Amino acid sequence: MKRTALRSACPINYSLELLGDSWSLLILRDIIYFGKKTFNEFLAADEHIARNILAERLARLQARGLLDKTPHPHDKRKEIYQLTTDGLDIIPILFELANWGASRVPEASLPHEWFEVVKAHREEVIQLTREVVGQGGSIFVGDNTVIQRLNLTAPA
Amino acid sequence: MKRTALRSACPINYSLELLGDSWSLLILRDIIYFGKKTFNEFLAADEHIARNILAERLARLQARGLLDKTPHPHDKRKEIYQLTTDGLDIIPILFELANWGASRVPEASLPHEWFEVVKAHREEVIQLTREVVGQGGSIFVGDNTVIQRLNLTAPA
Repeated sequence: MKRTALRSACPINYSLELLGDSWSLLILRDIIYFGKKTFNEFLAADEHIARNILAERLARLQARGLLDKTPHPHDKRKEIYQLTTDGLDIIPILFELANWGASRVPEASLPHEWFEVVKAHREEVIQLTREVVGQGGSIFVGDNTVIQRLNLTAPA
Repeated sequence: MKRTALRSACPINYSLELLGDSWSLLILRDIIYFGKKTFNEFLAADEHIARNILAERLARLQARGLLDKTPHPHDKRKEIYQLTTDGLDIIPILFELANWGASRVPEASLPHEWFEVVKAHREEVIQLTREVVGQGGSIFVGDNTVIQRLNLTAPA
């Protein structure tokens, strides 16, 4: 993103402009928490993102250096989206958004136990999440998860 | 906000839906970091928010229980906006947005020293910020600031 396009020099404004809207943050959530990697996996999110919005947001996150796109190793029709180092840096932002929401959503879809561990061992969990997600794993879903590494129970 | 209006039960999605768009978060930033309290003070932000958007976002933040509006004690034509307890809870979200942006904005408008203190004493600074902002103060501007309480230098 060109500097001239920024509305101000405020770092909060910078983050909001660069991360963009809610849909972009939900895509990053799907990668970090649920290990999603392909267009169709993102499309299947509970929030019912529209196909054209998803395509536009993926391209924008890539253009802004938050996502990398590579060919799928076993299926040439698909592409794999993964976080760059800059993208991995947003993990603490999602943790705080999750935390604020979790105390207010009547039936949160993330386990209570998870929030207690993040609260008690914040820096360690952020570091572990960076590592696992950087290797292609996720917090909750798949073969390589943060909750397994922490010996926690997977959400239902 | 009615539960039926939510796109999913995910707490991250909840936060994104409730906090809304960038403009809402910039208004909350202006209160927490710069001690702004009135419509015209918010209107003067560097990001050039439009008058109608500002009015709509203030009303929405109030309807969602994040802001309280009271008459100005000395000027009946004005109103004072202050954070509710739910509103104060977003302080850590802004800290993480600021942190992510600060390492990427070439000339960030927030002092480097501030980020070091937040990093080293996170929970204490969040607690102090809640207290000061809850009393009508702010992080950087005014008679009652977090940086004074921490013996830090005010930004230029």
